[in-house]
Amino acid sequence: MKLQLNDNFARIKPSYLFSDVAKRVRAYSEAHPDKKILRLGIGDVTLPLTPTVIRAMHKATDEMANAATFRGYAPEYGYDFLREAIARHYEQLGISVDAGDVFVSDGAKSDLGNFVDLFADVPVLVPDPVYPVYVDSNLMAGREIEYIEGNEANGFLPSPAGLSDVPRLIYICSPNNPTGAVYSKRGLTEWVEFALRTGSLILYDAAYEAFIADGSPCSIYAIKGAVKCAVEFCSLSKTAGFTGTRCGWTVVPAALGAVKPMWERRQATKFNGVPYVVQRAAEAALSWEGTKECMENIAYYKENAARIADLLTRKGIPFTGGTASPYLWLKCPGGMGSWEFFDKLLNEAQVVGTPGAGFGRAGEGYFRLTAFGSRAATREAVERLDKLL
Amino acid sequence: MKLQLNDNFARIKPSYLFSDVAKRVRAYSEAHPDKKILRLGIGDVTLPLTPTVIRAMHKATDEMANAATFRGYAPEYGYDFLREAIARHYEQLGISVDAGDVFVSDGAKSDLGNFVDLFADVPVLVPDPVYPVYVDSNLMAGREIEYIEGNEANGFLPSPAGLSDVPRLIYICSPNNPTGAVYSKRGLTEWVEFALRTGSLILYDAAYEAFIADGSPCSIYAIKGAVKCAVEFCSLSKTAGFTGTRCGWTVVPAALGAVKPMWERRQATKFNGVPYVVQRAAEAALSWEGTKECMENIAYYKENAARIADLLTRKGIPFTGGTASPYLWLKCPGGMGSWEFFDKLLNEAQVVGTPGAGFGRAGEGYFRLTAFGSRAATREAVERLDKLL
Repeated sequence: MKLQLNDNFARIKPSYLFSDVAKRVRAYSEAHPDKKILRLGIGDVTLPLTPTVIRAMHKATDEMANAATFRGYAPEYGYDFLREAIARHYEQLGISVDAGDVFVSDGAKSDLGNFVDLFADVPVLVPDPVYPVYVDSNLMAGREIEYIEGNEANGFLPSPAGLSDVPRLIYICSPNNPTGAVYSKRGLTEWVEFALRTGSLILYDAAYEAFIADGSPCSIYAIKGAVKCAVEFCSLSKTAGFTGTRCGWTVVPAALGAVKPMWERRQATKFNGVPYVVQRAAEAALSWEGTKECMENIAYYKENAARIADLLTRKGIPFTGGTASPYLWLKCPGGMGSWEFFDKLLNEAQVVGTPGAGFGRAGEGYFRLTAFGSRAATREAVERLDKLL
Repeated sequence: MKLQLNDNFARIKPSYLFSDVAKRVRAYSEAHPDKKILRLGIGDVTLPLTPTVIRAMHKATDEMANAATFRGYAPEYGYDFLREAIARHYEQLGISVDAGDVFVSDGAKSDLGNFVDLFADVPVLVPDPVYPVYVDSNLMAGREIEYIEGNEANGFLPSPAGLSDVPRLIYICSPNNPTGAVYSKRGLTEWVEFALRTGSLILYDAAYEAFIADGSPCSIYAIKGAVKCAVEFCSLSKTAGFTGTRCGWTVVPAALGAVKPMWERRQATKFNGVPYVVQRAAEAALSWEGTKECMENIAYYKENAARIADLLTRKGIPFTGGTASPYLWLKCPGGMGSWEFFDKLLNEAQVVGTPGAGFGRAGEGYFRLTAFGSRAATREAVERLDKLL
């Protein structure tokens, strides 16, 4: 083939983070077949879909079996029943979102990745440490990335103070992956005011909003003026255990002007919508009964997080997250590096976490533990760490 | 917002084809509320999912209800059980495809649209008339498009004879949407030889392959050497009635070199896979029992097509398609324009089709009818057209 390839793809370094983790775990496991390994590195849910969601999926499946109720191509931006259920979800948070500004997606990752196609070669601001998709999708689009560091001094919640007035695409994830840090209303207001003043656009990742319970904003639209400077990406992956079921949404306010019709055009051209049975499952997850069940699952994960947080506190290990987030981001004790600490936990306690260095330069010296495991595994891991640290 | 938008999006003319059709039908309907309108314009299936598929969806849904069998994030390129089922599907066609070269997708449209991101600003060759996604996704990427005309002289199957030796991305859709024309082995061999000689890459859309029964190739890989110059996009939308269930696949042969790892990287960065229940449904559709049921549905649509084809033949109206395709592409009688003929059928027989002009410049003077309606509606439409034409 003689066609010139898109050079920008070569700018992405293949991520060996999780494969390196897997490789080290496998090697250890083969050398010590008698040892039971406990995994607190996983970013995937483990509790099953809730009864209300399961009932809705069975019902929708039956509808697909009958010519009279069968559904072919879905409306391009999602069924009205789901767009309206999502608007009601915001209403319950005290936030007004027009159902017509809601675009049903197969998850936040795809939309976060595809959204940057709407822009020319514009400046991009990404926090570090960070969810790698923000970086990679912009590298693939040929853009240079400006990083803003999350660190102990700012509680892993960087602020725009000191930034130049250049308009940018600004990524914010709150509760944050990987640090678990959550912006306050005041913190987000600074960003919204900065975006409005500079003509920037905030790409707000709210995938973990369901873990917030302390009054911090669950949506960027809780901030005045955000409708004129922010797009919000949300997902049922962690809220309702949909990592293997695939449904989320993106809010593109009409107040953003040309951006909304461009996204409509992009989706109409390159996306064919979310399966009917999945849209019905998502509607069920957002119903009163479904929300109640999902909140029980989240409470389960948060209890896991609380047990890990309690241990870290007792040991005097600084950390963020773990209260309004399934993630705990801790400082490796004794000045250890991320991978050094990884090896220590694996070799001496058979507990697997994720080295912070995998999330960006500023992640070195930190370590991520997650609360998505079973209660029993979490309890046992905490006991082992209690002895080790 | 002061960020510069991607100008290329403005190159896509919003398609008013189907909304114009809907508008005219609505106006007629309001003026003549007593008239029963029959729709043969629809490109969507109407028969429900088959029993084997429905059983698989219920079973997979039950698995998602139980922690022991629950599935979170799927493997990035699809579950092995489905990639292997797809490889077996090719094996049954007498074609060898490596399961590791199969990428499970949410339908051919997304992958056809996204695949062009892998290339620099390369020349693109698109047939006219054509499925609009090929054109629009390249316009959005800023490329110029070279058209190659399908017409009566070449049976709507353009050949590479006379093309310059410049390497290109070459789109081929067989059976074709909208013309229903099907390339023979010889016709496809010409394209494969041209691609190999010039270093071009064929993007082969096989979404309608299940309608082929005359020995014409169901896959580009039936042609020797195609594995070195072609990517194939396929879909269960029309094969198994998955337009509202969303599953397809893309074959990116390892023999293409750098293209496959680039597609892997693109999908790993911007796609999170197809729902588990849908992958199980797709596996069932490709099973022996599922294939048998799907073929019964396709026979039903083909019988509709045969009735329309029979009418056109009796009336001496030239057409392509209708035997190995759900589409019939006919020359408007009496030199009428596409929209003129549309209005005539609507006003005088209350039958709705699709004006060929909506599929490109070369579609003017032609008209598309589809076989996806019910038997009763198709029969009645044929009777009305029999009187009118």
